Amino acid sequence: MTVLTRTLALAQLRASHARVRMYSSETTVKAMVYSEYGKPSEVLRMVEFPLPKLQSDTVHVRFLASPINPADVNQVQGAYPIKPAFEDLGPVKAAVGGNEGVAEVIATGDSVKDLKVGDRVVMAKTGYGTWRSHAAGPAQDFQLLPKNDKVSVIQQATLTVNPCTAYRMLKDFVKPEQGNYIIQNGANSAVGQAVIQIARAWGLKSINVVRNRPELNKLKDELTQLGATHVVTDEELGSHAMRSQMKEWFAGNPPLLGLNCVGGKSATEMARYLGHNGHYVTYGAMARAPLSLPASMLIFKNITFHGFWMSRWADVHSKQERYAMFEDLFQLMQRDQLGEPRWTPVEFNEAAMKHAVDAGISGYASGKQIVRF
Amino acid sequence: MTVLTRTLALAQLRASHARVRMYSSETTVKAMVYSEYGKPSEVLRMVEFPLPKLQSDTVHVRFLASPINPADVNQVQGAYPIKPAFEDLGPVKAAVGGNEGVAEVIATGDSVKDLKVGDRVVMAKTGYGTWRSHAAGPAQDFQLLPKNDKVSVIQQATLTVNPCTAYRMLKDFVKPEQGNYIIQNGANSAVGQAVIQIARAWGLKSINVVRNRPELNKLKDELTQLGATHVVTDEELGSHAMRSQMKEWFAGNPPLLGLNCVGGKSATEMARYLGHNGHYVTYGAMARAPLSLPASMLIFKNITFHGFWMSRWADVHSKQERYAMFEDLFQLMQRDQLGEPRWTPVEFNEAAMKHAVDAGISGYASGKQIVRF
Repeated sequence: MTVLTRTLALAQLRASHARVRMYSSETTVKAMVYSEYGKPSEVLRMVEFPLPKLQSDTVHVRFLASPINPADVNQVQGAYPIKPAFEDLGPVKAAVGGNEGVAEVIATGDSVKDLKVGDRVVMAKTGYGTWRSHAAGPAQDFQLLPKNDKVSVIQQATLTVNPCTAYRMLKDFVKPEQGNYIIQNGANSAVGQAVIQIARAWGLKSINVVRNRPELNKLKDELTQLGATHVVTDEELGSHAMRSQMKEWFAGNPPLLGLNCVGGKSATEMARYLGHNGHYVTYGAMARAPLSLPASMLIFKNITFHGFWMSRWADVHSKQERYAMFEDLFQLMQRDQLGEPRWTPVEFNEAAMKHAVDAGISGYASGKQIVRF
Repeated sequence: MTVLTRTLALAQLRASHARVRMYSSETTVKAMVYSEYGKPSEVLRMVEFPLPKLQSDTVHVRFLASPINPADVNQVQGAYPIKPAFEDLGPVKAAVGGNEGVAEVIATGDSVKDLKVGDRVVMAKTGYGTWRSHAAGPAQDFQLLPKNDKVSVIQQATLTVNPCTAYRMLKDFVKPEQGNYIIQNGANSAVGQAVIQIARAWGLKSINVVRNRPELNKLKDELTQLGATHVVTDEELGSHAMRSQMKEWFAGNPPLLGLNCVGGKSATEMARYLGHNGHYVTYGAMARAPLSLPASMLIFKNITFHGFWMSRWADVHSKQERYAMFEDLFQLMQRDQLGEPRWTPVEFNEAAMKHAVDAGISGYASGKQIVRF
């Protein structure tokens, strides 16, 4: 405990005797927290504090698995639009890292109706820290998952960001006809892989743009195995040969949906393949370059350019709508149409977590890093 | 008549005796036509040919006034997505220039029900040449205008492009609440001026972006007189002072609708003033530079970027819907809420037309150039 946090803790003790009494359950929470924004390996630290006592309207959950997503890291850096409040966690005023994860209900207050012990839950909103062993809170902070033994803990822990993003983008902007193409870049990303699989399951073909790389054929094989119809490189997009090739593939029905998580020049090239009245959805910006739109694409081809952000979707839609999506996705998983992401386990201790966060920043993690508790 | 056109005319005579018989009415059509794409003052020429005889399902109209719009010039250059077919016009195979204008019905075939002599009409679709004294064609090529003595011929002749574009953009993408702002650039354009007036009539405030210029205050006064709430320059858009100023004007309700006919850097700056979930509509590209979109605008602010093109709207909507819009606009005109554009008359002879088209290209025409027949 630093002098500062000890002073804070004392001030809180004096300020609210009632609040202190809450922190007196027998379970100890271990949580990876930060009290200021900054370089994650410097500002993140592991703290322990007692799990708040159960209230009539609260539940206790224990976490089973929580991934380390790129947005989690941006959030610790203070570079993400959702900035969790630094809350009184007993010993410190801090925010718990992480936004995604699956937990199991281990106790419920008397007046809680929607959840019971043994239920699997995810967080109701983005910004509820998931890098922690346990949490206590109002039942509405959590959302029930459908029961499905065929869906692994890893799939549950990585459900709410990537598969849900892919699902919504394929569903909410335009309904392509069976057998028609969609086109996406960043096809090897976690969302991209979910897009490939869901598109195939829904009877759609996909053009998948990836960056050129040494082992391109290996990647093409992997994505084709997942269900990609064609895999092309961003460098190929602007070429005459590729234009002719695509024309042949489309056979008069160019894609009406484009999904972009890259930005920059190749993202504009990709938009040129959309048909009239198409929709182009941006959900990421890996190239960190803006999207440049010739006016003719907007005016004469009537392409509409949207953004998509899963957190906002969850904020403005009901738990029922979200649950229905979970059920659809679980069905796909159960039928092996949507697999586990590639993942690598991370131990829940300060050193391992910091190492994992750094690996996440550098992009050299091998698959999705998932904390097991 | 050139050798080529004489040869063509002879070939047509031989090819179809029946077709030739059609060209035997007593009225002579004078039309400004082109038989190939190119520099307008070189490829445009005036031709005369007999008005085709009335058929049971056709009407005869005489034109009253037709503007020379920038898109008309692009069309002659072959640089516009709508390319009228070069049709058999008697002496030549050519397209008649112009796309907008008002005509009066002077004769109707026996089976024509929707139009009668004396009716004022506009063209049903873009691409029906309007730089001509008369036309004969199926009744469905023309669309009836509402009767309204308070609406001038100039207002009728310039109705279908600019006021309609302004009307649709203010109506179709988002419905701002009364008293809230919309923001637009190119505010001094014909569409821009219509936007100012319609917005005011509908209870909306407007931020109007114009290019900096020597007589800025004079322009500000003119636009304010039309109903502009505020007029700012594109250079001011990026400044801290303007950001604070806008914040004060918006008082917590930033605009949810932005209208762009410029493109380039200042168009991106303008988009930054939109509130969350706003809509940004591009209908022109005067700066001839693409629109550059930071991903955060799409993803986190959820701004949707649309294109708008009046010709497409007219192609996919019914005559009834278009008529309802005309009625609304005529009401605004009748109540002096939407005035005549600034305009200058053009005589309908080859030299005057060529001069006017050149003036249109250079942008030095004083107000909208309108051909009177």
